[in-house]
Amino acid sequence: MSALRPNLAIDAGRLWQSLMEMAEIGATPSGGVCRLALTDADKAARDRFIAWCQEAGAAVRVDQMGNIFARRAGLDDTLPPILTGSHLDTVPTGGKFDGALGVMAGLEVLRTMEAAGYRTRAPVEVVVWTNEEGSRFAPVMISSGVFAGAIPIETAMASTDRDGVTLGEELRRIGYAGEDLVGGRAIGAYFELHIEQGPILEREKTAIGVVTGVQALSWFELRLTGQEAHAGTTPMEARHDALLGAAEIITAANRIAREAGQAARATAGYIEAKPNGRNVVTGEVMLCLDFRHPGDAALISMERALESDIEAVKSRHGLTCDLKRVTHAPSVRFDERCVSLVRSAAAGLGLVARDMVSGAAHDAVYTARVAPAAMIFVPSKDGLSHNEQEWTGLQDCADGCAVLLNAILSFDSS
Amino acid sequence: MSALRPNLAIDAGRLWQSLMEMAEIGATPSGGVCRLALTDADKAARDRFIAWCQEAGAAVRVDQMGNIFARRAGLDDTLPPILTGSHLDTVPTGGKFDGALGVMAGLEVLRTMEAAGYRTRAPVEVVVWTNEEGSRFAPVMISSGVFAGAIPIETAMASTDRDGVTLGEELRRIGYAGEDLVGGRAIGAYFELHIEQGPILEREKTAIGVVTGVQALSWFELRLTGQEAHAGTTPMEARHDALLGAAEIITAANRIAREAGQAARATAGYIEAKPNGRNVVTGEVMLCLDFRHPGDAALISMERALESDIEAVKSRHGLTCDLKRVTHAPSVRFDERCVSLVRSAAAGLGLVARDMVSGAAHDAVYTARVAPAAMIFVPSKDGLSHNEQEWTGLQDCADGCAVLLNAILSFDSS
Repeated sequence: MSALRPNLAIDAGRLWQSLMEMAEIGATPSGGVCRLALTDADKAARDRFIAWCQEAGAAVRVDQMGNIFARRAGLDDTLPPILTGSHLDTVPTGGKFDGALGVMAGLEVLRTMEAAGYRTRAPVEVVVWTNEEGSRFAPVMISSGVFAGAIPIETAMASTDRDGVTLGEELRRIGYAGEDLVGGRAIGAYFELHIEQGPILEREKTAIGVVTGVQALSWFELRLTGQEAHAGTTPMEARHDALLGAAEIITAANRIAREAGQAARATAGYIEAKPNGRNVVTGEVMLCLDFRHPGDAALISMERALESDIEAVKSRHGLTCDLKRVTHAPSVRFDERCVSLVRSAAAGLGLVARDMVSGAAHDAVYTARVAPAAMIFVPSKDGLSHNEQEWTGLQDCADGCAVLLNAILSFDSS
Repeated sequence: MSALRPNLAIDAGRLWQSLMEMAEIGATPSGGVCRLALTDADKAARDRFIAWCQEAGAAVRVDQMGNIFARRAGLDDTLPPILTGSHLDTVPTGGKFDGALGVMAGLEVLRTMEAAGYRTRAPVEVVVWTNEEGSRFAPVMISSGVFAGAIPIETAMASTDRDGVTLGEELRRIGYAGEDLVGGRAIGAYFELHIEQGPILEREKTAIGVVTGVQALSWFELRLTGQEAHAGTTPMEARHDALLGAAEIITAANRIAREAGQAARATAGYIEAKPNGRNVVTGEVMLCLDFRHPGDAALISMERALESDIEAVKSRHGLTCDLKRVTHAPSVRFDERCVSLVRSAAAGLGLVARDMVSGAAHDAVYTARVAPAAMIFVPSKDGLSHNEQEWTGLQDCADGCAVLLNAILSFDSS
């Protein structure tokens, strides 16, 4: 049985208003949002979302990880649901759009259907994933990870914040420790709308990114050990300067990415030097590196080049180096059918679109393990994200939401 | 009138025992010493020193900066005193010898004269300078600076530690806010024995460093500003990575020192990155650089080279850089007569000695502004200092102390 593809249109102003209202919860003086997972602000955002969904006629359930599912029944409610959504938590100095856009767009899909009195064949659910950012509780995307069976629920529950409070405790404290089992049920498809968080769409004046997958990622922690020494008395050639070694590794990582083609990324984002005294040669440095590439083999080549550069730095300065790859996520290819439904939805709406690989990981990475999945990107002003200045205009948000609605409708009717 | 130069000999065992007893005050589990200025440990060290000096027949006075002067009267007590000493404060993970050796050697000089019933023509004073290290209260050498008129006493008194406690408050708390005016009186000569804190004497199997001066020093603070961006989504060529810029400046500083000859030093010892997130391109870095050279003109050339490298880094990565020279100390040349007395004392004792320029600053830098001054260095094992493993053996300590005694006696009798 195949329902006719209806002609529904989202209400751009209503979507925008919900987004801006949501951004008031945890708003910062500089125009950003600080809504760390499972804080009072996160609870307020969840409460607001649930109230809106109930007004739109959806039934809300919460699972043991605090993931919220707002369900609009289908004509055949035994069919696996079509899932859409994202997250409501932010980084400490985050913006209004990262995560919230995908959730508010899901809500707008429900509202549009409700207003038109339209029912899909399969149920439609809008999900809010708990603690996507990982800023408060590690790792990132912890709850979609549990949903997909990639992270044991006990591990997730025991994850602690900087004050030693566990995720499980905080779920109970804010009243979002639900009873439903996490995952373990059939999902028809998963579509996630998200801001690009990079500059490509804006630079190319493209409205829609048809996300075909997510690039592979490796995170490294390096501990470089040299020898503390007096900055005034120790001749240059007698030094074992761990910070100088780290500086050479940072520049090497940058060179490696530039040589590995346009799609490669290498970032040293975290550094900690000891004793960190202005007149002491550094004895120890902790450095974190983030390497990414859409191709798994290319990423491995970058890693090999890094290891070789580290060996050279070690022997040049008489350092020791403890190198650990602490995270590795292979590349993800989204479901071809879901991706092509996104592509067709954009084309059907007359929007300029391009295929792209996501540079960032999202809940869709895990969800794709248990359901056909795809993502839709909309432009980020100046490519900024995880930044209080993060911005995506009303029209771009509305275009992304319209593509989301139409991809869902197409999936449902095909 | 000229007294005959006597044949006095120090007691090496007694010197060593005092040093080791002093090292127990603030001893750390790893064999080092943590005796930050004006803490309870510093007070205990001062009390012990004063008790020892009084047992050796010296009269003790404390000035308003808490500098302690233990005076052994001269035959003509109206003559300007011959001053020797150093400091008893340490860095947080310091060793047993930095500062303490010079003070204990001064005590041993007093004890040797007392035991022999010998009186110099001029009075001899052993000084303990307050807060030489600057680890607790900035700047370094604050009290010899006040003594020499280089630092206003109000500035010094108002200097705060990390908890906002002032130096003046702490002096009163531990009972070392003396009444004597700071400086403003004639000093015949100043001799300071210190560990080298570098590897040169040990490497060259040389017992005594005849310190002819102190190298020039400049400290820089750089604030590099780029733009925070997502590590996964931001193409390499679209980045303004402040940490990458800092890494290039660190390597440039190192190259500048290596090109400026064997005596040059450049050290990046302090770095702080923001937001310091492993998956965020760094938006801002604070970096401190320490540049030194025995020649003032050579140091200026190094600074020019640094500025030119910073310009290149700024334009390469689209960064802004706020560069401040926060400290500049021109090179110091010690008094020729005092230096030659040290040289002759070493020769007279049959010790292998070499002239050298101090890589580190010491209280003698300021004292040299108001008195003829010189310093004596003894070897540091592996060149280590500001380190719990700092070590100088009994014989080296005793040799340095003997040179100190003989230089004082020669000065007095010449």
